[in-house]
Amino acid sequence: MSAGKILVYGGKGALGSTCIASFLAQKFWVGSIDLQQNDVASANIIVNCNASLLEQELEIITKLETVLGSDKLDAVICVAGGWAGGNSNSNDFVKNTDLMLKQSVWSSVLASSIASKYLKPGGIVVLTGAKAALNPTPGMIGYGLSKAAIHQLTKSLADPNGGLPNGAQVYSILPITLDTPMNRKWMPEADTSAWTPLDYVAKLFIKWVKFEERPQNGSLVQLITKNNETTLEIV
Amino acid sequence: MSAGKILVYGGKGALGSTCIASFLAQKFWVGSIDLQQNDVASANIIVNCNASLLEQELEIITKLETVLGSDKLDAVICVAGGWAGGNSNSNDFVKNTDLMLKQSVWSSVLASSIASKYLKPGGIVVLTGAKAALNPTPGMIGYGLSKAAIHQLTKSLADPNGGLPNGAQVYSILPITLDTPMNRKWMPEADTSAWTPLDYVAKLFIKWVKFEERPQNGSLVQLITKNNETTLEIV
Repeated sequence: MSAGKILVYGGKGALGSTCIASFLAQKFWVGSIDLQQNDVASANIIVNCNASLLEQELEIITKLETVLGSDKLDAVICVAGGWAGGNSNSNDFVKNTDLMLKQSVWSSVLASSIASKYLKPGGIVVLTGAKAALNPTPGMIGYGLSKAAIHQLTKSLADPNGGLPNGAQVYSILPITLDTPMNRKWMPEADTSAWTPLDYVAKLFIKWVKFEERPQNGSLVQLITKNNETTLEIV
Repeated sequence: MSAGKILVYGGKGALGSTCIASFLAQKFWVGSIDLQQNDVASANIIVNCNASLLEQELEIITKLETVLGSDKLDAVICVAGGWAGGNSNSNDFVKNTDLMLKQSVWSSVLASSIASKYLKPGGIVVLTGAKAALNPTPGMIGYGLSKAAIHQLTKSLADPNGGLPNGAQVYSILPITLDTPMNRKWMPEADTSAWTPLDYVAKLFIKWVKFEERPQNGSLVQLITKNNETTLEIV
């Protein structure tokens, strides 16, 4: 018998894969939603990246009904997303903003909709914002505006009238830089002692799912890593 | 000879139409970008609402090159947008959020891109946020997150590295309720003495274009109307 059921949106990414492995090790059933299959997940829902937001919704909701039946989820964790830079004068400004809206906002909106239908009372939704987006982000405008949208979404969902089941809670994590293989590849000279380990984040999620050290509903939880030590600062 | 050139994104809407008529009366050349033609505008660029964001960008930029040639703009004013409600548990949550992203975020992003290419040094970009989105908006989640994205976009554009031409400025107006025919139709019992007249907003834009009473670059300008009197409160 499983410890409970978790859905990870972005389950094939670096953070998502770590989360799924960690939850599986704790005997949870873990479903993955992603563009690609996560081979160790308990179930997979593959999203077509060329589909519209409404087509993605229909696809996901239809498959979720098959996978979950009348079961409910202990957590919906959305760690989908990516990064693309550029200011308003960049050649790729509109293209990159489109990508950020799709990767971050669409996935967070779909995760919120899933949570409102499938979360247990007392369950949690976790979304992924960015500490940078608390301030202007001129060098990565599309990224910043998408993450700012997620921050405000978090506050709306936390409201008693936001649509989540009774007693459910929502938080967003606001990383600075996560210690992923891609970040190591593209920033080989960076000081990785200021990067947040994926394992730390996965353990944080497990605690929250187990009703341990939960922040206040609607919290934006900044992950501040210095000298390989991570602390949480709540906005 | 015209007083200058203005582009109104959303030029066929209630506020956009009022802005265009007001600028024309002041001898400006005024172009309109909208889903429908504005018959009094100096030029029209019609956007296909079924096109993707990138298709819309290509269409607009291609037509702008024909319409403007090497001329520059004194202002890009984006008053496109709409309203749709619903929390995360609403049947139309994802659909309405999709609509809000398209109507408000896409138009603001395209207006920002146009401004970075065509604005004169010292010109202005005006975007349209919402006072409500400074706080949680559980009853209209898609609307709130889209407007929050525009608020953050405003701050990024105002940064010296945001991509606008030298000396250009950006503001967002944050209305509560505008006194439009549609709002009168759908809220017949409301106290319209707390609604902001469209004419007030158009006159405000004209002042800003003429370098009068400009707020600080990056300001979110709340329009607070009480007893038919509107005051500005800057965030």
